[in-house]
Amino acid sequence: MFQRVAIVGLGLIGGSVGLALRKAKAAQHVAGYDLGRGVSERAQRIGAIDQAYEALADAVQGAELVVLATPVGSMRHLLGQLASVLTPGSVVTDVASTKAQVMQWAEELLPTSVSFVGGHPMAGKEVSGVEAADAELFRGKVYCLCATARTRPEAVKKVSMLIEMLGAHMRFMEPVRHDEQVAGVSHLPFLASVALVNAVAGQDYWPEMAILAASGFRDMSRLAAGSPEMYRDICLTNGEAITAWMDTYIATLQQMRDQIAQQSPALGALFVEAQQTRLEWQHARQMIEE
Amino acid sequence: MFQRVAIVGLGLIGGSVGLALRKAKAAQHVAGYDLGRGVSERAQRIGAIDQAYEALADAVQGAELVVLATPVGSMRHLLGQLASVLTPGSVVTDVASTKAQVMQWAEELLPTSVSFVGGHPMAGKEVSGVEAADAELFRGKVYCLCATARTRPEAVKKVSMLIEMLGAHMRFMEPVRHDEQVAGVSHLPFLASVALVNAVAGQDYWPEMAILAASGFRDMSRLAAGSPEMYRDICLTNGEAITAWMDTYIATLQQMRDQIAQQSPALGALFVEAQQTRLEWQHARQMIEE
Repeated sequence: MFQRVAIVGLGLIGGSVGLALRKAKAAQHVAGYDLGRGVSERAQRIGAIDQAYEALADAVQGAELVVLATPVGSMRHLLGQLASVLTPGSVVTDVASTKAQVMQWAEELLPTSVSFVGGHPMAGKEVSGVEAADAELFRGKVYCLCATARTRPEAVKKVSMLIEMLGAHMRFMEPVRHDEQVAGVSHLPFLASVALVNAVAGQDYWPEMAILAASGFRDMSRLAAGSPEMYRDICLTNGEAITAWMDTYIATLQQMRDQIAQQSPALGALFVEAQQTRLEWQHARQMIEE
Repeated sequence: MFQRVAIVGLGLIGGSVGLALRKAKAAQHVAGYDLGRGVSERAQRIGAIDQAYEALADAVQGAELVVLATPVGSMRHLLGQLASVLTPGSVVTDVASTKAQVMQWAEELLPTSVSFVGGHPMAGKEVSGVEAADAELFRGKVYCLCATARTRPEAVKKVSMLIEMLGAHMRFMEPVRHDEQVAGVSHLPFLASVALVNAVAGQDYWPEMAILAASGFRDMSRLAAGSPEMYRDICLTNGEAITAWMDTYIATLQQMRDQIAQQSPALGALFVEAQQTRLEWQHARQMIEE
């Protein structure tokens, strides 16, 4: 049982953490803070926090656990602000999609009297905002954790308690490795989706084509509806890993394109390979989530 | 009300047409034929056809409507076989994903005593086989029709009746235009999905990455589980349109990759553009399907 938890940033993820904490009665007090006009009041109304605070310092004061659920783009500024107002002994964790950059900022900016544990829940929806918050959002999902050399074991334990309460599967990772791998399975899929939508909709006759677009296009364009700001921040903090994956993706497409042009018999084997991989992944995933 | 309908090829699509016909009691007799061992018997068992036939000639004899639901790759051979066994006055339609090539084969191979109307229902599932058949598969979906210069109006009327019975929205298209547009909204999305799966799973550390893959990867890899044979046939019969779309897609990705490498501020605008397009498409689609 936590005494006081502060959630900074009350969007889909922050709101869902709050709902889960309050539903499980896992904290005596959940304090909430959000820069957006009226956001923390709405979060309080739907039961994601106990109390909305107008000042960051008041929200985090005395909190044993501070959850930063703001966009990556505002993280550096936020960590700077927090440095002077955190209570010594507080444990700070974030939920940002990229970790190496955030971990570096946290080490640079936070005082040694607090511990930082980087976190990244592999959960999301294409809708954003506290209205979409869901206490079950993290259940069965993988939740990555990154520690620094100076992160104290008690701090890791505290964040582990949170993850367990959320029903997620913890996975410790080295930040750079996390960023490389997430670039492949999460950031690249988003960019592939955006490029697909922009490529087909860039034609004059898109309105006519749009009528033919069915479930295949629906699935492949869903990610493109994701938050442009969030993904811009991701690209700015994980550019190297992302461009490397895009090069691999483009090379794979180019090879396939040439095989189609040559009516190569090897084409079928590429499709079988992808089908096998997808079916194996799906099977393994179902085992994890059950 | 149809007298006798013959369905040649009892997979997901053929089976679903049969189930819908029998559920609506829209035909006095639904004859079924499939080359696969035991397939037509299974189709009869689940109620997709009235009678399984062992010989193609017996299945199509006296049928006023013959629905060809076989892979595109076997279509040419099948049309050649049908030429000598169809009853004069029969209307033949297909459900293949590419139309120009099929229409050309039909004109070349079928006798003038029968009429051919090309068809393509924009409906599918990632699972195949008659076991996945569903009478409601086509409801609210777009169903493309292509006529040749010699297609008789009564033939179009007969196929229209079928589409209406299936609950789909008819859309007449010129075959080459159909193939170009479908290459963009359906074949390109499949290839984008296959390339994504093969690109990320081609790395040594894929097993480790696979654990991090979440809903984004799930959606973007779903199409890659589709039938390798069907898509190979599609690539062989629609190669020109497909490679043109792949060039556009690769160029769009390359431009985005360079903007990420340069940390270009224009990146956010590309993401906003894709988000808008996707949301507008989704809204329009909901209106069509309701």
